[in-house]
Amino acid sequence: MIERILIVGTGLIGASTGLALRAAGFTGQIAGFDASAAELEAALASGAIDSFVRSRDEAIATAKQADVILLAVPVLAILDWMRLLAPELGRHQLVTDTGSTKRAIADQAQAHYNSPAGARCLPGHPMAGKESGGAALAEASLFQGAMWLFTPVAEETSIEAEWRAWVSRFGTRSMDLDPARHDQVCAWVSHLPQMVATAMSAMFEEEFSHTPELAAEFQAIGGRALREMTRLGASPYSMWRDVAMTNTQPLAATIYALEQRLAHLREGLKTPELREEFRLANEFRARRD
Amino acid sequence: MIERILIVGTGLIGASTGLALRAAGFTGQIAGFDASAAELEAALASGAIDSFVRSRDEAIATAKQADVILLAVPVLAILDWMRLLAPELGRHQLVTDTGSTKRAIADQAQAHYNSPAGARCLPGHPMAGKESGGAALAEASLFQGAMWLFTPVAEETSIEAEWRAWVSRFGTRSMDLDPARHDQVCAWVSHLPQMVATAMSAMFEEEFSHTPELAAEFQAIGGRALREMTRLGASPYSMWRDVAMTNTQPLAATIYALEQRLAHLREGLKTPELREEFRLANEFRARRD
Repeated sequence: MIERILIVGTGLIGASTGLALRAAGFTGQIAGFDASAAELEAALASGAIDSFVRSRDEAIATAKQADVILLAVPVLAILDWMRLLAPELGRHQLVTDTGSTKRAIADQAQAHYNSPAGARCLPGHPMAGKESGGAALAEASLFQGAMWLFTPVAEETSIEAEWRAWVSRFGTRSMDLDPARHDQVCAWVSHLPQMVATAMSAMFEEEFSHTPELAAEFQAIGGRALREMTRLGASPYSMWRDVAMTNTQPLAATIYALEQRLAHLREGLKTPELREEFRLANEFRARRD
Repeated sequence: MIERILIVGTGLIGASTGLALRAAGFTGQIAGFDASAAELEAALASGAIDSFVRSRDEAIATAKQADVILLAVPVLAILDWMRLLAPELGRHQLVTDTGSTKRAIADQAQAHYNSPAGARCLPGHPMAGKESGGAALAEASLFQGAMWLFTPVAEETSIEAEWRAWVSRFGTRSMDLDPARHDQVCAWVSHLPQMVATAMSAMFEEEFSHTPELAAEFQAIGGRALREMTRLGASPYSMWRDVAMTNTQPLAATIYALEQRLAHLREGLKTPELREEFRLANEFRARRD
C-alpha cells in the first residue's frame, strides 16, 4: 500500500500531482523537495505537499522512508536523482518520473533498478502542462482527460500497479510505449511544435523590437494566428535544454523535415503544389476535429 | 449619407460586416451577391443582408444603385470586381474591400478609381476571421476589438469618412498603412504563421495517416501544443492561393528566414545557441502578455 510519497520538484507538474492525489482521495503523507524555497512554500500553501525538506541529504533520507518517489524535474536532473537514489532504496519502493523524454531514463532504469533486491522504476510522462511553470499555477485537474504515458522496462509488481491506479484516478488516459518510440513520436507532436514556436518568437523579437515604431506596428496588426503560433515561445529553456540534450537526433530529424517542407511550399507558392499542401493540411485537421 | 450597401461575397467576413452594420444601427438597405446560393440564403436568414441577386449582371445593376460596394471575396476576385465595376460607377459611390493583401488592390485603385468624375476606392483589411469560413459562422461581434487596416491611395472625401465611422462603430481599432508596408508586415504576422501551420499539418498527415496504428498513436499523444500549432491547417486554399499569388516575394522571404532560423536552432540543439533562442522567444512573449 502506498502511504508515503516524496515529490522531488514541486513545480507545476509535481505540485499538480500532489493536488491530484489529494483530490483522488490519497490520505497518506506527501513530502516535497525542490531547489527553490518559493516553490516549496507555494506547494505547501496549496496543500500539494504536507511537509518539505530543504537539502539534498534530507531528501535522500526522506526518500528512504517513502513508498513512491516521484521525480518531477527536468530530464537531466531526473537522471541525476535516479543514480543518486538507486543505492539508497530497496524492494517495495518505486521510483517514477514525469520526464519529457524516456530513452535515457529507461536506459538508466534498466541499469540501476528492477533487480530482485533493488527498488522498482517505472518511467512515466504526463502529456500536460502550461507554457509557464511553477507551483502557483498547479491544479488538481491538470491531468484530467490528458494522456499519462508509461515506458515500462521490466515485468511489473504490485507497487507499479498501485501507482497506475492512482494516476487513472486523476481522470487520465494512459498508454504504454517503447521508450525509443515514445521519444520519436514526441519529437513530432511535442518537441517540434515547441521549437517552431521558439524559432518564430525569437525571429519576431529580432525583426520587430529594434524601434518603438516597428514594435507598435507589429503589436497593432498581429492577431490570434500570431498569438497562437507563438504562445509556446514563453516556455522555459531549463526544461527544453534537457529535451534537446536527450532527444537530439529524433528532434533534429523532425526539424529538418519541416525545413524541407517549408522550402517546397515556398518554391511552389504560385503552383498547384500549394493546393496539394492545403488539401493534406485540411485532411489532417478534419480527422482531428 | 450611406443608405444602400452591396456586399459582394456573403461568406464569414461579408456576412459578419452586414450583421455588424445592423448591430451598430445601420437602417439602410443591404443587398448581397455570392457565387454560392447557400451562402446567400444563410446570410439572408441571419439578417446580414435584406435581399440578394443571383447573377453577375444583376450584381452590377445593384452596384450602380449602391452608395457603398464592399468586396468581401478572395483577393483575385476583388481585383476582377474592381475592374468590372470601375466603368459602371460614378462620383459619390465608394468601393471598399476586405482583402488580405493590399498592394495589388491599391495599384488597381490608383489606376481605375478616385478620378474627379469616377467612383472612390478605399482599400481595407479587417484583421479578423476564423479557421473555417461561411455565412453560417458570421457574427456581429467578429470585429470587436480587432484591427481594421486601411491603405488609402487618394485624398479622402466624405463617403470614405462615413464608411470609416461605421467601421469604428463595430468596436474596431483602425490604422492607416502604406500598401507595400501592409503586405510586408502581414507576411510576417499573418501569412507566415498560416503557411507554417499548413506545412506542419500536411507533414503530419503524410507521416501518420498510413496505418490506423500510427494514426491512433499520434491521436493519443498529441496535446494542446499540437492542436494549437496546426489549427490554421483547416484554412481554405481558395483564400490563401490569392494571398500567395499577390504577396509572393514578401511571403517567400519570411518563409526562407524561418527555414534559416530552424536550421540554426537544429545545428545548435546541444549548444548555448539554444539558450539564446529561448531567451529571445521569452522576451518576445513577455512583451506581448
